[in-house]
Amino acid sequence: MNIPDLLQQVPLFHGLDDQIIDHFCHHANHRQIKKGSMLCAPDDVAHNFYIIESGWIKLFRDTQDGQEAVLDIVTTYGMFGESSLFGKDTYGWYAEAVEDSNLLSIPVNILKDAIQNHQMFAVNMITAMSEHRRRLDGEIERFMLQNAPQRVGCFLLKLTPKSAWDGDNPCPPITLPYNKALVANRLGMTPETFSRALKALKKNTKITMSKSTIEIEDINSLAAYSCEACSNFFPCAEDTDKRD
Amino acid sequence: MNIPDLLQQVPLFHGLDDQIIDHFCHHANHRQIKKGSMLCAPDDVAHNFYIIESGWIKLFRDTQDGQEAVLDIVTTYGMFGESSLFGKDTYGWYAEAVEDSNLLSIPVNILKDAIQNHQMFAVNMITAMSEHRRRLDGEIERFMLQNAPQRVGCFLLKLTPKSAWDGDNPCPPITLPYNKALVANRLGMTPETFSRALKALKKNTKITMSKSTIEIEDINSLAAYSCEACSNFFPCAEDTDKRD
Repeated sequence: MNIPDLLQQVPLFHGLDDQIIDHFCHHANHRQIKKGSMLCAPDDVAHNFYIIESGWIKLFRDTQDGQEAVLDIVTTYGMFGESSLFGKDTYGWYAEAVEDSNLLSIPVNILKDAIQNHQMFAVNMITAMSEHRRRLDGEIERFMLQNAPQRVGCFLLKLTPKSAWDGDNPCPPITLPYNKALVANRLGMTPETFSRALKALKKNTKITMSKSTIEIEDINSLAAYSCEACSNFFPCAEDTDKRD
Repeated sequence: MNIPDLLQQVPLFHGLDDQIIDHFCHHANHRQIKKGSMLCAPDDVAHNFYIIESGWIKLFRDTQDGQEAVLDIVTTYGMFGESSLFGKDTYGWYAEAVEDSNLLSIPVNILKDAIQNHQMFAVNMITAMSEHRRRLDGEIERFMLQNAPQRVGCFLLKLTPKSAWDGDNPCPPITLPYNKALVANRLGMTPETFSRALKALKKNTKITMSKSTIEIEDINSLAAYSCEACSNFFPCAEDTDKRD
């Protein structure tokens, strides 16, 4: 995808003058990164901001006792690195490609200049950060109050297409976007807890699973079970701007 | 405290021209709120941004099954309401006074105008949001990987004064800032789990507790136990800018 078209897919770059878009394009670079490659470490100075064109990037930290805290797994049109714009200048996590990925990198200094000189861009950045914060608030709420099967159910519901949300149309089979161990990790569970949670979910909500494919027979039943311990009703306000 | 002095305590307002500070002061209002009073509900349009002069404000949501998700408990010089500046215009949570509190309110529209017209203020806002995001990332990491006693230990460590951090000076007695039920809630635990976690902590780290006062005999032992399942070493990078 050419750079202007890619930027158009990311709300951060909406509504800006051609001149500033040209400036970003001029300084942006395509970057291919192989599955398993590491893009940065927590203490690296954040020189670049990234937009994902395709693939999956895992943002994580290592704990002192050797566990992996997977803070986010970002995919197409997602971005990362913007939280190091001002204040602390390190990334704060490892970024590793979960699959072969194509990224666009823009130097953080170019973004800093744009924030200081283009009000619309500063507003877009604050909007993007506000939305991210609402997502994180939602995540904290779920970690606090949902049990493991409900967290897995919530994760599956977020993979369903908009067309299935009203429950009238059948939900197409859902494929896990990455391997089960990583899903478990992202949900703060051991693989064993994840397996038990899936079993509980099958028993309570009429889902069936073979390998990495899940059939959701009754989306309302899955939502009733999973969203019970959440302040959001299904479909989740966090996801309603989702493309289908 | 007069308004300019209060604003000077909040990094968001640092380094700004007198003119814009005067503008904020002109539109700011002191507000007293009684313990137990509710300031706003999740679906209320966010007309005001708040800075806490004294007291404690709990930000929370209700889940469908009647649990309370305590997303934050903010105190002196903390702020809330800024995440509704752009994007969604509702608060997204209830705000309730845990104690009698004094607040300063500034209309959100005044902040919006300032972001659009004063680059330095926009940069300050992005810096504040980046820092908050790092704190939330840390919180998510702890929910993912720390067990209940470690989470309680982390909470206690955050209450210790800087003077005790190197372990050479004795740590003064720590008083819980609000009641145990609310501490448990904030840590995503039932009161029963919180009690069990405290017992495990006493057994493993030489803390003693009577009523709401905790004696930390050996801060290094508490840190070794609690921070083991965290990527941060004690003292936590999130807290190193803390006033003493």
